[in-house]
Amino acid sequence: MTGRAGNPRVGILMGSESDLSVMESAFRILDDFEVPYEVRILSAHRSPDETARYADSAGQRGVQVLIAGAGWAAHLAGVVASRTTLPVIGVPIDSSPLQGMDALLATVQMPPGIPVATMCIGRGGALNAALFALQILALNDRTLDGKLKAYRVRMTEEVLGDRNSKLTEYLANRKQEGTA
Amino acid sequence: MTGRAGNPRVGILMGSESDLSVMESAFRILDDFEVPYEVRILSAHRSPDETARYADSAGQRGVQVLIAGAGWAAHLAGVVASRTTLPVIGVPIDSSPLQGMDALLATVQMPPGIPVATMCIGRGGALNAALFALQILALNDRTLDGKLKAYRVRMTEEVLGDRNSKLTEYLANRKQEGTA
Amino acid sequence: MTGRAGNPRVGILMGSESDLSVMESAFRILDDFEVPYEVRILSAHRSPDETARYADSAGQRGVQVLIAGAGWAAHLAGVVASRTTLPVIGVPIDSSPLQGMDALLATVQMPPGIPVATMCIGRGGALNAALFALQILALNDRTLDGKLKAYRVRMTEEVLGDRNSKLTEYLANRKQEGTA
Amino acid sequence: MTGRAGNPRVGILMGSESDLSVMESAFRILDDFEVPYEVRILSAHRSPDETARYADSAGQRGVQVLIAGAGWAAHLAGVVASRTTLPVIGVPIDSSPLQGMDALLATVQMPPGIPVATMCIGRGGALNAALFALQILALNDRTLDGKLKAYRVRMTEEVLGDRNSKLTEYLANRKQEGTA
Amino acid sequence: MTGRAGNPRVGILMGSESDLSVMESAFRILDDFEVPYEVRILSAHRSPDETARYADSAGQRGVQVLIAGAGWAAHLAGVVASRTTLPVIGVPIDSSPLQGMDALLATVQMPPGIPVATMCIGRGGALNAALFALQILALNDRTLDGKLKAYRVRMTEEVLGDRNSKLTEYLANRKQEGTA
Amino acid sequence: MTGRAGNPRVGILMGSESDLSVMESAFRILDDFEVPYEVRILSAHRSPDETARYADSAGQRGVQVLIAGAGWAAHLAGVVASRTTLPVIGVPIDSSPLQGMDALLATVQMPPGIPVATMCIGRGGALNAALFALQILALNDRTLDGKLKAYRVRMTEEVLGDRNSKLTEYLANRKQEGTA
Amino acid sequence: MTGRAGNPRVGILMGSESDLSVMESAFRILDDFEVPYEVRILSAHRSPDETARYADSAGQRGVQVLIAGAGWAAHLAGVVASRTTLPVIGVPIDSSPLQGMDALLATVQMPPGIPVATMCIGRGGALNAALFALQILALNDRTLDGKLKAYRVRMTEEVLGDRNSKLTEYLANRKQEGTA
Amino acid sequence: MTGRAGNPRVGILMGSESDLSVMESAFRILDDFEVPYEVRILSAHRSPDETARYADSAGQRGVQVLIAGAGWAAHLAGVVASRTTLPVIGVPIDSSPLQGMDALLATVQMPPGIPVATMCIGRGGALNAALFALQILALNDRTLDGKLKAYRVRMTEEVLGDRNSKLTEYLANRKQEGTA
Repeated sequence: MTGRAGNPRVGILMGSESDLSVMESAFRILDDFEVPYEVRILSAHRSPDETARYADSAGQRGVQVLIAGAGWAAHLAGVVASRTTLPVIGVPIDSSPLQGMDALLATVQMPPGIPVATMCIGRGGALNAALFALQILALNDRTLDGKLKAYRVRMTEEVLGDRNSKLTEYLANRKQEGTA
Repeated sequence: MTGRAGNPRVGILMGSESDLSVMESAFRILDDFEVPYEVRILSAHRSPDETARYADSAGQRGVQVLIAGAGWAAHLAGVVASRTTLPVIGVPIDSSPLQGMDALLATVQMPPGIPVATMCIGRGGALNAALFALQILALNDRTLDGKLKAYRVRMTEEVLGDRNSKLTEYLANRKQEGTA
Repeated sequence: MTGRAGNPRVGILMGSESDLSVMESAFRILDDFEVPYEVRILSAHRSPDETARYADSAGQRGVQVLIAGAGWAAHLAGVVASRTTLPVIGVPIDSSPLQGMDALLATVQMPPGIPVATMCIGRGGALNAALFALQILALNDRTLDGKLKAYRVRMTEEVLGDRNSKLTEYLANRKQEGTA
Repeated sequence: MTGRAGNPRVGILMGSESDLSVMESAFRILDDFEVPYEVRILSAHRSPDETARYADSAGQRGVQVLIAGAGWAAHLAGVVASRTTLPVIGVPIDSSPLQGMDALLATVQMPPGIPVATMCIGRGGALNAALFALQILALNDRTLDGKLKAYRVRMTEEVLGDRNSKLTEYLANRKQEGTA
Repeated sequence: MTGRAGNPRVGILMGSESDLSVMESAFRILDDFEVPYEVRILSAHRSPDETARYADSAGQRGVQVLIAGAGWAAHLAGVVASRTTLPVIGVPIDSSPLQGMDALLATVQMPPGIPVATMCIGRGGALNAALFALQILALNDRTLDGKLKAYRVRMTEEVLGDRNSKLTEYLANRKQEGTA
Repeated sequence: MTGRAGNPRVGILMGSESDLSVMESAFRILDDFEVPYEVRILSAHRSPDETARYADSAGQRGVQVLIAGAGWAAHLAGVVASRTTLPVIGVPIDSSPLQGMDALLATVQMPPGIPVATMCIGRGGALNAALFALQILALNDRTLDGKLKAYRVRMTEEVLGDRNSKLTEYLANRKQEGTA
Repeated sequence: MTGRAGNPRVGILMGSESDLSVMESAFRILDDFEVPYEVRILSAHRSPDETARYADSAGQRGVQVLIAGAGWAAHLAGVVASRTTLPVIGVPIDSSPLQGMDALLATVQMPPGIPVATMCIGRGGALNAALFALQILALNDRTLDGKLKAYRVRMTEEVLGDRNSKLTEYLANRKQEGTA
Repeated sequence: MTGRAGNPRVGILMGSESDLSVMESAFRILDDFEVPYEVRILSAHRSPDETARYADSAGQRGVQVLIAGAGWAAHLAGVVASRTTLPVIGVPIDSSPLQGMDALLATVQMPPGIPVATMCIGRGGALNAALFALQILALNDRTLDGKLKAYRVRMTEEVLGDRNSKLTEYLANRKQEGTA
């Protein structure tokens, strides 16, 4: 279940297989940056022992950052964080009728002593969790740091160039249609 | 740490010593009904192993119902419920700036498979948790069942008798003060 | 209207026929565990006398646990709980525009003296209500207790085995598609 | 427990004696308008039979409008409304940590068929409930209608006259203190 | 624009034509009870003068109760209530992204002095507004009072009879399909 | 990227190209009023330098009012407002699972010293932002002021005339269908 | 009731005299900038005619921007905005148990066609409303524009200079007390 | 403004001097772990250039992790994160009437591409931010890693030992007072 060849440096956990479509945003980023990771479906409530065992052993196997995505009363990130001093990043998932407000509060409002670094709700949160994991790893990895900076530049160019050209096109169309 | 002589039938857990002033509402009810209980301060996050050990062993020691009170991202009840098939009752505590909405959602929105019976926020929730534990125990304890029914009658009489006499007095005072 | 042959041990109430698609998650669990139950559509507001009569008589007919599901200003569980000392489990249903937040607060925020054991919003809540009823009944039913423990083991295996094999497959597909 | 001499035309109910300080805003208005009323502390959950009996008999005793104030999972107004076709006005009270949001939703989100006319949260809601009861009664009571219109005129004059003179004074003071 | 022959006794206002699909629940009830009503699309903000004129003159034309439905920052009911002592019933409509929470708070949280009797959000609220208007009118209309009581009996029978027979059928189907 | 010939007097910014479908409500109004504007996709976070440069230079190029629409933790309007004393109007966009509540609070709750004039969530907010910009410009532009007043009159007539005729038709249809 | 000598250019309205302590933040800013303003206590609900008359006439008397602060179901800004094409700035005030969330939604969620420029809740919102009014006026007032820019510079220096010197002192104290 | 001798490895920013009492929880942790840090009061809105300059230069001066605490529409963490690839940790502060819900959403709901690692609201969040910064630094600092693990052990012992002895004392007192 390792996403790429090489010793996984990031561990991605999720509470249910239905969270895969959200969490794959994180896979994509780590693939792009060629950072090896492993993935587990581990429920804080339905497989507590295995979750504990995973959290206890991840550091020894070389994993440096953990990402945990869950919905509803999302305890997964907190349970993992309670058993390791590795940085744990939480992704609240909007799978309940309350649209992720429950998962957000259950993930972010951790009591003093056990931090969980919480990202925004849903796919964007999974993507940002992966980026944040890379930002942590880049503190001691010059290549990665360079890639992250290049990614930022690309993102900015995309916002400025490509998107605004679409905008120009859009506005031009409006005029042709006689709206101006 | 057992509240009364006799084998404890109810286990009361709380995440922090600051929760004592809320949870003592539960102690009082169990004392009144003379049902032995035990109390532990056990944090889901700051003492995960001991919490797990407690949950794993409570049933063997004769405890039949568990009550867990916690604030913030309140995971205690859920973590305990994930390790036992004893009924677990959760009490959300309003110790964060969000006034217990975080604790409520983190306690009640448990995923399918691991129920937590959630009570209202704060002291009333602790009192009701104890009453609910007694209602469970009374299913197989005629004496307790009789006491619970007597408690209800007393409660009703109190609402109707004592309180309305206070109301009469209150309204009489209003008239004397010339408001009517 | 009894779900199975045998004296019903669980009574399932719901406020409206439109709640059937949510509450059937509870039927399924009780069917699986072969615990007889009865079902009624009884509105706290549109049939108050019948609701009262049902609550008053359920215990005498051998029902031991009550489950009540309702949406909007969900009073059903509270109204039933006010008339019996049997344990009452509430299931908030997200049938209003406020996505169940109204039903959740109207069910869980019961005043001191009359507890309602509240589950999560929607289908998961109905499923968990049935499981929680079984956990109560299992306190005095060894066969049921064994079944519940087996159910947990199966659930864990499912999370760990089956699901992770799907995950492996998923990740394998990603690689073949050249994403890694 | 009747607030004034004469057959009570308005019945004011509240769930707990602690609600008196909120509900007395309603007493004051009815006293001012010299409309007789009666007051009861009746809990939907702690005295369900008496609440039902009150609701069933109020109309026969000449009561025309009912006002019910309650906090938490405020079921009182809805329970009363389910048993009478008299107009029932609900006052949500902010006595829980959730500041009345729970009482508001539990009072206002009544299902189709059983309306509760909900007022704003707290003392202002109790005052407005009394005014709304008077507006209903005034449809067939010319004297009352005249008094209500005079009350409005007085209220407007108060806003415009008295208050703006205080404002003038306030601004004059500011200038003297050299702020302008 | 009068819904039925005869002098309208109820005035139904709405802020926008898009609210018609919600407010027609009120038309239906008033049609069933054969109570004449009139309907206007009048925006508190987009046609303030006409709204004021309507509110000022409704009473003189014999209208006795007003119903106002609006979404977003729903001011319509409050604006109308500020200009008349006729009872005004507000229906919050869930037409904004906030699902009616904005309309609910803007309708119900009226300041002391100007009550708006607020119903639940959406179609159910429109239906209940009409029923509540009828409950007010029935205080001085024996025929209407009788019809309202018959409506309640019918509603109860429907809940108990028809619906439970559907339930029996539903459960029977489940058994045939081998689920029990 | 200027919407019309002439020196742009209004600058419209948005955080992402996916906001175009919301913000075009603003384009339409400005086109109707023949006020030239320019449009940019500029992210507070993904292109901070360009956003700063735009805000710094807009006033010098003759732009008098800025409109900024964004979703999620919507910082765009605030970031722009921090760099200019031109009036900045913020439009919260409901692009996250929290339906715009996050964007609303992140836009409106600006600290003392740096105001952002916040409009309602979504398309209506974009339309109102354009109208509000015109109201500002009209303070020194008689022609524009006249057009705005004519727009209001037209809007009122539309509410009163056209819409109520649709209503008449609607009600007539209801009668023919035998509902009354 | 004019705050300063000279023709008032800004009109400040508030719903109740209890709002004075919040709205005086706006007075202070306008005094500092020596811009004349007038102040009125005018309730949308308790003095609707006078509110309408004020809104209708403000522009003719030379007022160019209106600021309206109100709590609860805050309709004041919207009602004023519906009667004028002058820019109207709304300040939601947290005077209800819901801490201003009701006032915020009732102020900001205006329907398409009638914008209200909403500021943050409470005193900061009143201060920002005054600043925003000045930013509008400065578009055609060079002196004012210069003052606003100077105010910004002063604000920045204050943040950077004065405050950080307090911080230095604070940290120095910590060290002396042996915390480091 | 450096908290300790040595090159600062952590930069702590806050939006206002009133946030000092919250953020000092972070100082205390870093002091205890003897990790040098620097502190700045830098407002995203009132000193945007300096904030940008700080964010741009922090990495070059050896700072490895940034912590930003802010209230209201808390943009500080996001603005800083938009200008650096160093890990940025956000602390929402409950300084507005909305009790930190505004600051939480404005901090955590960052758009894809620019992550902010959000902690819980208030003092606990500041404490956890410092711990999380240490967890990041400990990935490449064995001494720090050891200290963190010792801190966890101490925390657990405190929960289990000291606190439960207080609990024993508390329960003993209850018994002496004759409550059992």
